[in-house]
Amino acid sequence: MKSIPLLLMGCGGVGRQLLQHIVSCRSLHANQGVHLRVVGVCDSKSLVVASDVFTRELNDKFLVEVCRVKLNGLSLSKLADFGLAFVDCSASSETTGVLNRVVDLGCCIVLANKKPLTSRLEDYDKLYSYPRRIRHESTVGAGLPVIASLNRILLSGDPVHRIIGSLSGTLGYVMSEVEGGKPLSEVVKTAKSLGFTEPDPRDDLSGMDVARKIESLYPDEMEPDVMSVEEFLATGIKLLDNDVEERVKKASLRGNVLRYVCVIEGSRCEVGIQELPKTSALGRLKGSDNVLEIYSRCYNEQPLVIQGAGAGNDTTAAGVLADILDIQDLFP
Amino acid sequence: MKSIPLLLMGCGGVGRQLLQHIVSCRSLHANQGVHLRVVGVCDSKSLVVASDVFTRELNDKFLVEVCRVKLNGLSLSKLADFGLAFVDCSASSETTGVLNRVVDLGCCIVLANKKPLTSRLEDYDKLYSYPRRIRHESTVGAGLPVIASLNRILLSGDPVHRIIGSLSGTLGYVMSEVEGGKPLSEVVKTAKSLGFTEPDPRDDLSGMDVARKIESLYPDEMEPDVMSVEEFLATGIKLLDNDVEERVKKASLRGNVLRYVCVIEGSRCEVGIQELPKTSALGRLKGSDNVLEIYSRCYNEQPLVIQGAGAGNDTTAAGVLADILDIQDLFP
Repeated sequence: MKSIPLLLMGCGGVGRQLLQHIVSCRSLHANQGVHLRVVGVCDSKSLVVASDVFTRELNDKFLVEVCRVKLNGLSLSKLADFGLAFVDCSASSETTGVLNRVVDLGCCIVLANKKPLTSRLEDYDKLYSYPRRIRHESTVGAGLPVIASLNRILLSGDPVHRIIGSLSGTLGYVMSEVEGGKPLSEVVKTAKSLGFTEPDPRDDLSGMDVARKIESLYPDEMEPDVMSVEEFLATGIKLLDNDVEERVKKASLRGNVLRYVCVIEGSRCEVGIQELPKTSALGRLKGSDNVLEIYSRCYNEQPLVIQGAGAGNDTTAAGVLADILDIQDLFP
Repeated sequence: MKSIPLLLMGCGGVGRQLLQHIVSCRSLHANQGVHLRVVGVCDSKSLVVASDVFTRELNDKFLVEVCRVKLNGLSLSKLADFGLAFVDCSASSETTGVLNRVVDLGCCIVLANKKPLTSRLEDYDKLYSYPRRIRHESTVGAGLPVIASLNRILLSGDPVHRIIGSLSGTLGYVMSEVEGGKPLSEVVKTAKSLGFTEPDPRDDLSGMDVARKIESLYPDEMEPDVMSVEEFLATGIKLLDNDVEERVKKASLRGNVLRYVCVIEGSRCEVGIQELPKTSALGRLKGSDNVLEIYSRCYNEQPLVIQGAGAGNDTTAAGVLADILDIQDLFP
């Protein structure tokens, strides 16, 4: 039986779900000859570790309890001087320093947290010092096999020249609903009431932190520092209805629909509204699914399409667990 | 630099393309710290090996030549007594014996050849004795990340309860064309002239070797041992036009389309025509793409969808190469 020691950083939604998955998969993993030995769990302030991290583990009953408890504890750097998988399920940018240090100690890293990879290029390069020792599938589209599939394509020497995706469930929902003629303001309010949006829906409508050139769905004079959420929802957003309706109609006349997408092509990266054929995978998108189209030499005229739920603690945690199992060959 | 010794079985279409990929990816793999050392190449009758398989390799210039050459050579079993990745790009069921033997010797196995896995269950079990040492992504949907994605889902303890897919480019093309009102007989002839079908199109129309319960697109009295290919194409297939047209129309009245799919659900596996919603990923399928929908706890109402080109030497070989790189951690 191969034993993989794990230290879990972040025990909020995804981290907690991951612990539950680990416990409920015990017999499945035993059949695979693998045992996931959880030696420590921490949140942004504190850390719980087994009495002897080299030989012991936190037992399953304790794991389910431990995420909710805050304890003052040891420093992470003290733990990092032996082979270990660091699992970061937090949403904090403050784990970057620790992660950078454990890379030097030869530890493996599994991230659901996208911040360490998306703030500074030198941090990204540092974390990728040993490409076989890092996995971060759940940083894009929750558990959808996006990174794994892209890596397979790139490692087989098949050059990727274009990636286009709808990676926001909220904006995917909004754009497919306005297509049917509903006003933007109503659709956004429905999305909010369904729990699809952030408390301030402008966090979704602004296009987020994905790329350099970003098209926001609302103008500067409706920015959060100028207008309150209440005012935006009551009067501001209605001013955008006609413009969106007109764009939807014009696109429709050309057999197209509007989608809020991220496009990476050559060195260009754009996030915003694009007119796309009704019959493309992106054009046919309904509801809050994520969709990614990858164009390469092998997938030239028709792209490789990956589609499915791109959010949720359950799917995200499942992606993290698959990542952990994927590095098992690095352990004795 | 990590060196992975490779022995390639089968140097027809896929095998040849794989050698070309390996050669053209040299610098890419060097950047990853990996060198693929091809120590031998063989087809169904013969084998070419490097002068010293432990330290030498077939050089790149020779690799491009070697597939076309048939030599009388050594027995494969003589080569199998050291750590090695066996790559089977043949379409032969006769490699099964050798593969079974090299499993016991601790070798890794990468298959594009689906026959060893689909003839006898005991052979499948034998080949899967060490699940981490076998990869066979290209046995389903060419290079599409089907097996890799399924394994990720299963290893994360997310139970899969339904898989439905259109895995024949030919039948995908035929079913989407008859939807537009064209007679089956014309569509099949066009598919044949485009090179989409086997020389005898009934090899495609019969539903192939996938499952227990298979619905053929033609009746028993048009079986190859009763009717010639010429007769089938000239007169036989026209007798099926009206029936197909009527089924297409009836489905259309219910907002559905017909698709030739494989469904796995519980212990049931069926291959045949199904009525599916026009708006599902399978219903929207056009051309010769493969599509797979996976339903699990995480992907419950909306499935995980994987779509793209499911045939071609280039994509198949790219999938094999990605598989080889995926087992690199098993080599010193």
